[in-house]
Amino acid sequence: MTATSLSRAAQLVFDFAEGDRTQADLLGGKGANLAEMTRLGLPVPPGFTVTTEACRHYLARGTEPPTLREQVTAALRRLEDRLGRRLGDAEEPLLVSVRSGAKVSMPGMMDTILNVGLNDHSVKGLAAAAQDERFAWDSYRRLVQMFGRTVLGIRGGLFDDALTAAKARAGVATDVEVPATGLRDLVETFKHIVATESGREFPQDPREQLDLAIRSVFDSWNTERARIYRRRERIPHDLGTAVNVCAMVFGNLGETSGTGVAFTRDPATGRPGGYGDYLANAQGEDVVAGIRNTMSLQDLARQDPASHAELMRIMRRLEAHYRDLCDVEFTVERGKLWMLQTRIGKRTAAAAFRIAAHLVDEHVITLDEALTRVTGDQLAQLMFPQFDPGAAGTLLTRGMAASPGAAVGEVVFDSATAISRAAAGARVLLCRRETSPDDLEGMIAAAGVLTSRGGKTSHAAVVARGMGRTCVCGAEEIDIDAEQRVLRVGDVVIAEGDVVSIDGSTGEVFAGERPVVPSPVVTYLEHGLDTAVEGLDADAADLVRAVDRLLRHADETRRLAVRANADTAEDAARARRLGAQGIGLCRTEHMFLGERRVLIERLVLAESADAHAEALAALLTLQRDDFLELLTAMDGLPTTIRLLDAPLHEFLPDRTELAVRVAVAEATGGTVDPQDERLLGAVQRRHESNPMLGLRAVRLALVVPGLFAMQVRAIAEAAAARIAAGGRPRVEIMVPLVASVMELHLVRGEIDGVIAEVAERAGVALDIPVGTMIELPRAALTADRIAEAAEFFSFGTNDLTQTTWGFSRDDVEAEIFASYLEQGVFTVSPFESLDRDGVGSLVRMAAAAGRRTRPGLPLGVCGEHGGDPGSVRFFHDAGLDYVSCSPYRIPVARLEAGRAALGDDPGDATA
Amino acid sequence: MTATSLSRAAQLVFDFAEGDRTQADLLGGKGANLAEMTRLGLPVPPGFTVTTEACRHYLARGTEPPTLREQVTAALRRLEDRLGRRLGDAEEPLLVSVRSGAKVSMPGMMDTILNVGLNDHSVKGLAAAAQDERFAWDSYRRLVQMFGRTVLGIRGGLFDDALTAAKARAGVATDVEVPATGLRDLVETFKHIVATESGREFPQDPREQLDLAIRSVFDSWNTERARIYRRRERIPHDLGTAVNVCAMVFGNLGETSGTGVAFTRDPATGRPGGYGDYLANAQGEDVVAGIRNTMSLQDLARQDPASHAELMRIMRRLEAHYRDLCDVEFTVERGKLWMLQTRIGKRTAAAAFRIAAHLVDEHVITLDEALTRVTGDQLAQLMFPQFDPGAAGTLLTRGMAASPGAAVGEVVFDSATAISRAAAGARVLLCRRETSPDDLEGMIAAAGVLTSRGGKTSHAAVVARGMGRTCVCGAEEIDIDAEQRVLRVGDVVIAEGDVVSIDGSTGEVFAGERPVVPSPVVTYLEHGLDTAVEGLDADAADLVRAVDRLLRHADETRRLAVRANADTAEDAARARRLGAQGIGLCRTEHMFLGERRVLIERLVLAESADAHAEALAALLTLQRDDFLELLTAMDGLPTTIRLLDAPLHEFLPDRTELAVRVAVAEATGGTVDPQDERLLGAVQRRHESNPMLGLRAVRLALVVPGLFAMQVRAIAEAAAARIAAGGRPRVEIMVPLVASVMELHLVRGEIDGVIAEVAERAGVALDIPVGTMIELPRAALTADRIAEAAEFFSFGTNDLTQTTWGFSRDDVEAEIFASYLEQGVFTVSPFESLDRDGVGSLVRMAAAAGRRTRPGLPLGVCGEHGGDPGSVRFFHDAGLDYVSCSPYRIPVARLEAGRAALGDDPGDATA
Repeated sequence: MTATSLSRAAQLVFDFAEGDRTQADLLGGKGANLAEMTRLGLPVPPGFTVTTEACRHYLARGTEPPTLREQVTAALRRLEDRLGRRLGDAEEPLLVSVRSGAKVSMPGMMDTILNVGLNDHSVKGLAAAAQDERFAWDSYRRLVQMFGRTVLGIRGGLFDDALTAAKARAGVATDVEVPATGLRDLVETFKHIVATESGREFPQDPREQLDLAIRSVFDSWNTERARIYRRRERIPHDLGTAVNVCAMVFGNLGETSGTGVAFTRDPATGRPGGYGDYLANAQGEDVVAGIRNTMSLQDLARQDPASHAELMRIMRRLEAHYRDLCDVEFTVERGKLWMLQTRIGKRTAAAAFRIAAHLVDEHVITLDEALTRVTGDQLAQLMFPQFDPGAAGTLLTRGMAASPGAAVGEVVFDSATAISRAAAGARVLLCRRETSPDDLEGMIAAAGVLTSRGGKTSHAAVVARGMGRTCVCGAEEIDIDAEQRVLRVGDVVIAEGDVVSIDGSTGEVFAGERPVVPSPVVTYLEHGLDTAVEGLDADAADLVRAVDRLLRHADETRRLAVRANADTAEDAARARRLGAQGIGLCRTEHMFLGERRVLIERLVLAESADAHAEALAALLTLQRDDFLELLTAMDGLPTTIRLLDAPLHEFLPDRTELAVRVAVAEATGGTVDPQDERLLGAVQRRHESNPMLGLRAVRLALVVPGLFAMQVRAIAEAAAARIAAGGRPRVEIMVPLVASVMELHLVRGEIDGVIAEVAERAGVALDIPVGTMIELPRAALTADRIAEAAEFFSFGTNDLTQTTWGFSRDDVEAEIFASYLEQGVFTVSPFESLDRDGVGSLVRMAAAAGRRTRPGLPLGVCGEHGGDPGSVRFFHDAGLDYVSCSPYRIPVARLEAGRAALGDDPGDATA
Repeated sequence: MTATSLSRAAQLVFDFAEGDRTQADLLGGKGANLAEMTRLGLPVPPGFTVTTEACRHYLARGTEPPTLREQVTAALRRLEDRLGRRLGDAEEPLLVSVRSGAKVSMPGMMDTILNVGLNDHSVKGLAAAAQDERFAWDSYRRLVQMFGRTVLGIRGGLFDDALTAAKARAGVATDVEVPATGLRDLVETFKHIVATESGREFPQDPREQLDLAIRSVFDSWNTERARIYRRRERIPHDLGTAVNVCAMVFGNLGETSGTGVAFTRDPATGRPGGYGDYLANAQGEDVVAGIRNTMSLQDLARQDPASHAELMRIMRRLEAHYRDLCDVEFTVERGKLWMLQTRIGKRTAAAAFRIAAHLVDEHVITLDEALTRVTGDQLAQLMFPQFDPGAAGTLLTRGMAASPGAAVGEVVFDSATAISRAAAGARVLLCRRETSPDDLEGMIAAAGVLTSRGGKTSHAAVVARGMGRTCVCGAEEIDIDAEQRVLRVGDVVIAEGDVVSIDGSTGEVFAGERPVVPSPVVTYLEHGLDTAVEGLDADAADLVRAVDRLLRHADETRRLAVRANADTAEDAARARRLGAQGIGLCRTEHMFLGERRVLIERLVLAESADAHAEALAALLTLQRDDFLELLTAMDGLPTTIRLLDAPLHEFLPDRTELAVRVAVAEATGGTVDPQDERLLGAVQRRHESNPMLGLRAVRLALVVPGLFAMQVRAIAEAAAARIAAGGRPRVEIMVPLVASVMELHLVRGEIDGVIAEVAERAGVALDIPVGTMIELPRAALTADRIAEAAEFFSFGTNDLTQTTWGFSRDDVEAEIFASYLEQGVFTVSPFESLDRDGVGSLVRMAAAAGRRTRPGLPLGVCGEHGGDPGSVRFFHDAGLDYVSCSPYRIPVARLEAGRAALGDDPGDATA
């Protein structure tokens, strides 16, 4: 959207009565909703909106569009005529607020100027009309201050200092105690500051105030912090903002006035019925300042039943109209209710599911629509263990909810202690002002991480999310004294070793141990609805039913199948319970760990062909049993087994450790373990500077004969055994790390031969498709050729991301990504959510090319992106057949696949 | 080219008189040239060619095209009528040869059957006509043997055994001594073998012999070895072969008969004038068997002046007609000269240059054409040092010319000895039966490698070429006795420590030390024509002049500029002498090696901001001097400097070594060097499992502030100093490893600021373009975005190959590539010659996308492919502006860029 030449006829100013909610592009979100409420006949103070188009013209050319002034004049005239008051009139002045309102909400980023229209004359008219001298001068004082800072760019501290001085003169402690005369003097002081600092008098012409305020809102689009915010949030820089000019109403004109915010349902739990806060005799800023306690809507009903009743009526109307949870801002001015804003309200994950289900029950929305109102991320949040809501807890403080979950442990203040205590069996929480790469091992050892500094993109937050550790960060009230080995929150002192509980989903920090309970949603997913709701309270049971309903609908709706990444029969069985329709990735290297490592050592150290063959034979027996169990667990469902992917030396001991052991034994005259010496030789020989790009997977198969053949034999024999036992094995074999079709042709020669031989010997028909991972850029770029030899593709988006970006996940994620997120290189790690521009374009190319060669070629994805909500939508759009992900991400993928099938991205449900 | 349905009218048989040389697709190379010679009126024995189309039909359907039989009948009838003899006639029989002839030569791969037409009757006619009983029966014996083996697939050993028995019976030692009666008996024995083994009698019907022979040639296209050969040589499998049926002529009918091969010029040196070998009273196979000494063409002139004169006349005619060196096969039958074959002749690199220049002098071809007759590979061969041609040498044996150069050294038989002797200052030649990855370090330590097993794609050959070591492989006469530590060639025994010389360009192995001299072509390139030709013999001087002439023409012709990869002023000056038009890549990490490492250690170990700043400041001073020297050497020419690319820990000591040192010191109660301990800490902390994909280049710049700024300041200050000194610095700054445009935006903020500041302070205008490497797939895939922030692109095809293929060059080349070349995954390492399908497609995409965003965006390449002939052509075609390569590859790149500018790939000049 770029600035185009505006014709003189272009309408740049819309009265609230002219627009509607569909016009957010032109009127901004706030303006469009004000127009919608006006159109519905709700009590909105009249006003008008200057369009984003006018703003874009101004930003591109540095001057307002030529017709803007006259259009504002006309709109202002209509407003004045309607209200019977003139802007800045000396007797009974009209005052207006001037607020920004972009298409996408950018909270706190842009400018607002209230009380425009006040000057040395109209301040008196306001005092008379309001019968409140102090109120009028305070309003004027605020205008000069806001105008000076915002429009004229004067340093805010100058006004603050003057206000402090005024309080001192008046001998009072708070702003509200400054009397009218003090405020009148303060206005003079402020005007003096304006004249001195800006070289111009504070404009007494109300219209000049208005024009400058509008321009200042335009300008605020391009402040440094707004640009940074947009870059981070990936909001285009060329949208521009609209400007809403609205007649002022006042909630601070006595006890029959007041202001509040409300939700049409409880946004925390999703319970039906209005929910909100109200503060009598106050303005919006007072609510935010939290000086006095707010009252509930129930209290308002007792104090001002008429306003309450009207508010409830309006909220019901809005919800019916918007067909979703709405939040509103309202003001009561001497008993008259005014609506100042509405929008679709933000809500918690639990509320999102419950509200969506309730709205279906109420026949407000369809099940399809309900599905678009919840997200996979929200479902994932509901699956974390949580603190037992019934148990008491002492809230210490709050930080940022950086990585979800509930963690309990002894406080430790450094990585070494974390490691040693964890090794001794303790659960620990690593507490640091902030973390650095040096803390990595401590974070791995800890149950959770707590920091007093840094936001959601800090090192601690990024790394903790990456490794699935619960994390609360930026809890600024916490003072960590690593020397004394204590942390302090106010007067509370927590010593190293004391137990603390942190909630990474809410940011809460509790003293002592809070009991943790599994999520009822997980109980439902694993064991079904009936088991899950047993003994639950009404809210929790209602939530579980809502999840069940929407997840079942997603299953009915989706086109993408969902498989699991699972390496053991146990994982496979769990995945099946969680809704997996097959296994998309069984990583066979996990089968070579533990005590089986010794077999790989034997293989690597084998000095004769016989020893080599013996080691392979021993592995064959074990592998066949592995596969037999797996195929039994997945009977009837497709099961994709990836042949050995890891380099052999990954199963051998660490090179440096071995070298040190051998060298120390030699230096101290001890006996060197001959096995150590032989292993060291093998490790040195096989050492690679970049094993990720080294001798592994299909390359290993082509260099070390017999390895793949052994695995294929184990698979084929397991399948034959299942058939003999009356089962329905549906196994598929996947070749990793193919870069050239020739590699695949060569190993297929071996693979197909072994399968045929086993089938022949067992006397059964074995239908075992052989496909390949697409996990190297070259495979994607030559997918047309590779499809000649592959019966299916499975995109290995982890490795594909590593090579496309040239990022080794293990190496760079901790050290670089925090910095990259901070600096806006990306908004989310490309290992977490698929990089559509780079990796995604390879996926699309390869999918198309593969199917050109082999129409109907089955396509799946088995990288961790298969369980990431945003990525699932991409894979749906790219035409893939299935995603495969770790068992606990399966419900997330099912839900997102259902949402994706409903068409265009509806965006975040709480947008 | 796939088999299509043939219409009944399709012409499947062409008389030699019908075709011409342009029809190699249809008639095969041999058939087309036979037709061409016939068309020119040269004395070719008459015959006809069965087309490749007929072959493709047969291969696709398993039966000959329906009209083939009648077309062969007609062609045969024309042949018989013309010669007045009938195929297999009992009185005066016509005999024919049946030979394969594909479009592309596949030497020795397919079948030939001679003497078709002989049977129990016609053998007598032949004996009468030739007046030579023995000759006739020997011809018949050969037919039955060849037919049995080739057409009927009978094991050749059976015939050989029978022949041996016949010799024993006759009491003679050689085949030629077996008398006519013995041969007559042998025919009976052979026919018996045929009947027993194939279950059918040897066909007496000459026409049946002919048809079966033709079919057998068709079948020979698809033998296993032919398929393997084609896969390696990347010849399509669906071309098929033509079949040439030609009236037999005999060179073994007495002293007035004979056979020979000749070249129109000397293919070894390029000297003008006919050159060849002739053997009287012999057939082609006798020449190959090398039983008797051949005579030269000069000898033939004395013995048979008429035939010699006609041959010379014909060769002049052919060369004028083909406008290139031709080779021919000919036979004289009782004084009558017959031409059996001609083609463009293969030649050495030196001959290629000289012949091309001579043909220009002779007004036969243009300079443009001459340029297409030589290749960059040939020029590169001429640049290797060579053995002093004047010095004597004792030729021991010959192997394969596997990696060019001349190497002299002590013979060693294992890697450990190679390393220890080299460490002691000796030059060594590593001699092994064959090499394996265990020999890698020995190969690095050796001056050359000699093996007795393995071909040009063996491990030794591939690895030696990759590391630029001279190598002769597969010298099968050498018997290596590693136990006794000797090698034997026949009776000659060479012990470990004895000196041997090997010529990797010819495959020759000499006993003793041969003096090595630099190539006169290199002398010319570095010091000019006049210096180079001083004291050279006529042939060498003529060669240097030819190179000069063609290289200058390439410079006039090419569009691609050629720059150098050079890191020092010295290299830069050499590159300039060799024709570099700038520096495309100055790698600054090389400036941090040697004694400067300690500065990097200080930087890494810096514990305060001050210490960090101090370490950077020390580096700044050194870097500025580096750049000042470089810009002085390259004054007036573009000089692209790449900012630091390597990870910092690359400058630190090896982790395992340090750990061992520290652990041993601790274990033995010694004092641990505190610097070692601190370094070990830093190395452990910075250890990466895949540094290639880790924290380096632009990532390091974004995480460790000040690093790039220091380098940019050094560059800008050096440029400013050059301007102050009256120079013309044309420096460009290149940012490595960019994956996202945001990275480039961020570092450009820093870079542009430093340049502006230096320019301001120095009071000069600094015009320093800032561009980026395209060396990650993501950079190529998002090149449109990256071009927003890059003023030029330089393709880093080394890293791009690593990530596109997922191959770490260091790790896999030695171990995997030999296996991959052997198995046909690729014909050349993708690090040596650009992989067009994968990496090349990214280059094309990025070039197009970059220029869409920024028209005219300068594009270069600075990977090692910039000096590879085949890759240079690709870069020309892809529209790049320049290639950059190591100094000694510059002439190669200049020549290839000139060739590329001439249009379509003319293929290898010797094809």
